[in-house]
Amino acid sequence: MAKVRVHNLTVTLDGFAAGVDQRLEAPFGDGVEGLHDWMFAAMEDGATGVDAERVRLWDVNTGATIMGRNMFGPVRGDWPDESWKGWWGDNPPYHHDVFVRTHHLRPSFAMEGGTTFHFSAEPADVVLERALTAAGGQDVIIAGGAATIQQYLQADLIDELSLVIVPLLAGRGERLFDNLGDISENYRVDELVSSEKATHARLVRR
Amino acid sequence: MAKVRVHNLTVTLDGFAAGVDQRLEAPFGDGVEGLHDWMFAAMEDGATGVDAERVRLWDVNTGATIMGRNMFGPVRGDWPDESWKGWWGDNPPYHHDVFVRTHHLRPSFAMEGGTTFHFSAEPADVVLERALTAAGGQDVIIAGGAATIQQYLQADLIDELSLVIVPLLAGRGERLFDNLGDISENYRVDELVSSEKATHARLVRR
Repeated sequence: MAKVRVHNLTVTLDGFAAGVDQRLEAPFGDGVEGLHDWMFAAMEDGATGVDAERVRLWDVNTGATIMGRNMFGPVRGDWPDESWKGWWGDNPPYHHDVFVRTHHLRPSFAMEGGTTFHFSAEPADVVLERALTAAGGQDVIIAGGAATIQQYLQADLIDELSLVIVPLLAGRGERLFDNLGDISENYRVDELVSSEKATHARLVRR
Repeated sequence: MAKVRVHNLTVTLDGFAAGVDQRLEAPFGDGVEGLHDWMFAAMEDGATGVDAERVRLWDVNTGATIMGRNMFGPVRGDWPDESWKGWWGDNPPYHHDVFVRTHHLRPSFAMEGGTTFHFSAEPADVVLERALTAAGGQDVIIAGGAATIQQYLQADLIDELSLVIVPLLAGRGERLFDNLGDISENYRVDELVSSEKATHARLVRR
């Protein structure tokens, strides 16, 4: 059965998924330089070990993605035009339907390689239904950022969250584990494993 | 040279060093059951591995300890009498001077095995000076709780913090990494290693 997953969400040792002042020149904001170094190293040819295994599992059986608007791009408020097409160039790595949650709607558009971006102001559960349909039986990934993941955790709509903790300190920014109340009622941690660069933990439903 | 250390401070995956409603029956509060299971397992005879190594280092070259009043006991407000002698029985595991930071003073008292508890309302740095003197050249440990450690981190008085992350979710309680501002200016993480039960990270000065 299709799962709703967060996959390889990376946070600092002090729990931040992003720093402050996210913008074009700093997509994850200031204070989190190196946050994804573990991932880039794990994506190199011939990489092995737990980091590489987790990276490879990202797009296995994945049929659609949901993200918040700030993950899609640095534009805030109304779109000045439709020139912003995401951070990922002409051929984004998704290769499936990506649903961007935003109050600032614009028409869907398709990119090379099979990625189509859709924009929706509908509630979290409605967007998820659309994504599950688009995924055609494969998993849906809730990509980020922290606020979007919190909304889906609060609504108890996530089946599995694989978290990556890296040995950096941000001090401030956007925490993943915030505004969640007692999520321990719904989730438990079923795995903890570490490379030299990153610790991987997985939350699953109780 | 003597260091000021936090040693094996244990937090949940979502960053809590204690739960809510700390009291006699639940010294670390509700929601963090099992927080120190890794430590109890590592203290068993014949235990090996990284957890056991870290436990053994706790009292190596350690000459004094500082803790907050809530770590010393469940009594809040004025002391009704002087019957509370700490959580640790007649022979506490410190075997040196322990300084309890509190506005509610009481006379120092000695326990079996060399532990003497002192009570002080003086500023963090003054209590640290006393502890360093008492330690006679050995390290001073800032034991907890979270608020006390935050005060010493804010004052940039901690040389080394070894953190233990366990695969539990608390949802709420007392966060270690809170109210700290940009501690990444003062500290970096120099080690990350994991057993099946716990991930160990060490913060050191930049």
